[in-house]
Amino acid sequence: MKLASFQFKGHAIYGCVDGDQYLIPSAAFLERHPDLASVIRDGALKELRENAGSQGGRVAFADTIPLPVIPNPGKVICVGLNYKSHVAETKRADSEYPSLFLRFSDTLVADGAPVLRPAFSDRFDWEGELAFVIGKGGRHIPKAQAFEHIAGYACFNDVTVRDWQRHTHQFTPGKNFPDTGAFGPYLVTAEDVPDVGTLTLETRVNGNVMQRASVGDLIFDIPVLVEYISAFTPLSPGDVIATGTPGGVGDRREPPLYMKDGDVVEVEITGLGILRNQVGIAG
Amino acid sequence: MKLASFQFKGHAIYGCVDGDQYLIPSAAFLERHPDLASVIRDGALKELRENAGSQGGRVAFADTIPLPVIPNPGKVICVGLNYKSHVAETKRADSEYPSLFLRFSDTLVADGAPVLRPAFSDRFDWEGELAFVIGKGGRHIPKAQAFEHIAGYACFNDVTVRDWQRHTHQFTPGKNFPDTGAFGPYLVTAEDVPDVGTLTLETRVNGNVMQRASVGDLIFDIPVLVEYISAFTPLSPGDVIATGTPGGVGDRREPPLYMKDGDVVEVEITGLGILRNQVGIAG
Repeated sequence: MKLASFQFKGHAIYGCVDGDQYLIPSAAFLERHPDLASVIRDGALKELRENAGSQGGRVAFADTIPLPVIPNPGKVICVGLNYKSHVAETKRADSEYPSLFLRFSDTLVADGAPVLRPAFSDRFDWEGELAFVIGKGGRHIPKAQAFEHIAGYACFNDVTVRDWQRHTHQFTPGKNFPDTGAFGPYLVTAEDVPDVGTLTLETRVNGNVMQRASVGDLIFDIPVLVEYISAFTPLSPGDVIATGTPGGVGDRREPPLYMKDGDVVEVEITGLGILRNQVGIAG
Repeated sequence: MKLASFQFKGHAIYGCVDGDQYLIPSAAFLERHPDLASVIRDGALKELRENAGSQGGRVAFADTIPLPVIPNPGKVICVGLNYKSHVAETKRADSEYPSLFLRFSDTLVADGAPVLRPAFSDRFDWEGELAFVIGKGGRHIPKAQAFEHIAGYACFNDVTVRDWQRHTHQFTPGKNFPDTGAFGPYLVTAEDVPDVGTLTLETRVNGNVMQRASVGDLIFDIPVLVEYISAFTPLSPGDVIATGTPGGVGDRREPPLYMKDGDVVEVEITGLGILRNQVGIAG
């Protein structure tokens, strides 16, 4: 099942993808579960499918405005340096632990919306990633149970303002400009992704392939990430974990290559669709 | 005016400190402004004082359970390495920019409640700090206008799990264990802190002074922090910024000294009261 959040007639709702339409749930269902995170929290994903298919309606993509898959997650946790190809290009040493930084949820931006470069930086770089969304919350989740806690998967573009990322050793500023964390176009529920390690991730800028990797090449795989992260912070339904980017970012190229206003950046992952954003400039 | 958040008869409310009692606002006021962040957001601080003094009631501290000053801020932004005495002891180089990391709001803990050491680490360290709370939100706030955006000041203890802070170059895990960000006992409104640079900060463990510094010794002062942070992220009423800790942390002592279960750690800042927490162990 593919799930998306969007605005329709001025309301933020959600639905199941069906061709170029969304199946939306009934008004009563929407009242009980006002957003996708609450559907997940309430364990109502299966019920959503039935409800949207029978009691709800149909809405054409064209009549909606996309929202980030989960518009307002409680936690957005990002992994850095999680593919050997990226560690190598950054010339950093291997690490025994995942490198983690946080994004505010107000950095998220939908598929189709512009990612916004701040006017005072021209070092605006892509980072195509696989993200997963927590389904069942928990703390101290062992690796062996990690997949039981995952609701689904989506494409993520951890767009980075490189100079602000490097102002100090902490990445926070360069990762927290509004409208830089692209997340979509939809969430594919875990049942439809039997082996996430076989998926291929590709990032393109104006159609040119910039990054290409197998999710199986993650240094710290999803079970390890879930165990490590839940050891220090409780995870809740709807929380988002972006698993890191492979080699091929613009900043480490010779010469460096950054995104310019009007460029179109796409992140595509097998079965998870294409996350497409044009570069705009922040007002 | 000193403002605090607390539980009373099972409800999370707030009030003005008056001796060993809280003046609490009327039920109608609490309905309009359900928490302290909403009072700040609604520009109702002055009205709160009048309402609590005339139409509300009185509650003894003893009949309440303290909450963090702002129990659920949208953003908690922490500054690292912001006193020369601390930069020197960490043997890090000076930086042109503030070093910033984020805390989830579920790490916050009230005055009087235990700060919780995870069972798997014995490197549990204090970091006494001055925190300020945003009153008027904004983006791209110039230094010269920074103080207009501040609602007030409070003590903060950025308690750190040192080994988890150093797993990688990113501080995130060691700064995000639940019940490690002590914040209280109350917020002193900005009008009552005419010159924050003259305040003295002191951290004590079991009565022994571990840190002592003037807030005037901040490398990046409050106006610089507000300008820099608001350049990349919008600030909203109730957001919390912890300004960094001076020299004297336990981890950099020879030999290192960490907090043990049962230890009492206090952060005191001139006029802002004493934030006192006992060390407990996380279940």
